[in-house]
Amino acid sequence: MERGSAAAVIIGNEVLTAKVQDLNGPLLARRLRDRGIPLRGMTIVPDEIDAIVEAVAHSRSIASHVFTSGGIGPTHDDVTVRGVALALGRRVVRLEPLERMVRAHYGEAMAPEALRLAEAPEGTELLWREGIWYPILHCEGVYLLPGVPQLFQHQLEVVLARMEGAPPKLRTLYLSLEEAVIAHVLDRVALELPQVAIGSYPEFDRSAGYRVKVTVESTQLALVDEVVGRLKRELPAGGVLRIE
Amino acid sequence: MERGSAAAVIIGNEVLTAKVQDLNGPLLARRLRDRGIPLRGMTIVPDEIDAIVEAVAHSRSIASHVFTSGGIGPTHDDVTVRGVALALGRRVVRLEPLERMVRAHYGEAMAPEALRLAEAPEGTELLWREGIWYPILHCEGVYLLPGVPQLFQHQLEVVLARMEGAPPKLRTLYLSLEEAVIAHVLDRVALELPQVAIGSYPEFDRSAGYRVKVTVESTQLALVDEVVGRLKRELPAGGVLRIE
Repeated sequence: MERGSAAAVIIGNEVLTAKVQDLNGPLLARRLRDRGIPLRGMTIVPDEIDAIVEAVAHSRSIASHVFTSGGIGPTHDDVTVRGVALALGRRVVRLEPLERMVRAHYGEAMAPEALRLAEAPEGTELLWREGIWYPILHCEGVYLLPGVPQLFQHQLEVVLARMEGAPPKLRTLYLSLEEAVIAHVLDRVALELPQVAIGSYPEFDRSAGYRVKVTVESTQLALVDEVVGRLKRELPAGGVLRIE
Repeated sequence: MERGSAAAVIIGNEVLTAKVQDLNGPLLARRLRDRGIPLRGMTIVPDEIDAIVEAVAHSRSIASHVFTSGGIGPTHDDVTVRGVALALGRRVVRLEPLERMVRAHYGEAMAPEALRLAEAPEGTELLWREGIWYPILHCEGVYLLPGVPQLFQHQLEVVLARMEGAPPKLRTLYLSLEEAVIAHVLDRVALELPQVAIGSYPEFDRSAGYRVKVTVESTQLALVDEVVGRLKRELPAGGVLRIE
């Protein structure tokens, strides 16, 4: 497991059935990148306990922070709390501070089902944020965020403010060469400098003005510069159109 | 495993690092929905063999068709063929028809690395389509599609044309009620008619004119109508604002 890495579990039949397009996953990827926290994987699962348990357990095996999106609420399709609890081997309990808050929020007219919002995996930490009545649930590195995009975004920032990271350095090379021609150079450099992530993306639209985009990325700028220098020297002359 | 169901594995460091937003996953979800093929899960993994093996193996355990996106090509980060082969317990071999095609495509000036495009899991079926020089690789229900969105889209249609499905029927109810108030009715109906997928989505923007959207979906229209009828009768009077 990579220290300080993240994984995401997007819980949503509505995404898998294309009723809505998921905004939370892409937002999470961008914000983690800004913060320098590598995202190791993302899984979109239906609103089903078994699928959530599997995805959360697997996510915990590849990353130290796990973000879930969706499935928090009082209705029958809100099963994230139970899924996360099972994945962590913990009971679901009613938390007193949550219960007080739910009762205060709904007042006299509260339907009994609203109290499902007071349930969480045993030992859950509650993260409060001004202006939002329901807190973020956090248990063993798993952060349970709501699926509604505005709420997800707000609560994500609360969680990110607690985390450390080092933003990566990125250079992008635009080449006039085909992938097959550059493959042996990329192979050699990638093998010798495994700490640097080198990506190769062909462009088939001729009006783009280049044929392959190569990305070079690392938290260490010196390593990025070394790879860029080697690619410039070792690729066929004139092959590098520009570097950004 | 659900017959005729699908799962997706999106292979892309560029997606996880937010360099690009994945278009293929959402497109796949929409097109599968149009065709009536349920999408059971989607995983986004880095360009790493271990991650691909795990994701493909897991996808095969939950769905009969698996679509991969990305990681097809001649460079060091194109490891999908090897990942899929390992997940299927098959060797990677050079396929004669692929080799002929690659040699014809690149001609005299072919770099040796181009021949990586001639490799596939042993026993792979090649699906050809007019106007595209590289075929779709298909092996044991796993379809290896390219990550470039235009190519992904073209090749996806070739695959979908081979599959059968029954498009689902959907009705949407817009309610003036909060989720906590309707939860007991949804619970009861969902429990009694498990073949119908009922989704509940709160709306916190007051200008939307409703508080919860409830979706009712099944391949059988009669069941959808039955659930909609029960919700209209059993929810508090005046709670249903409109039905689409």
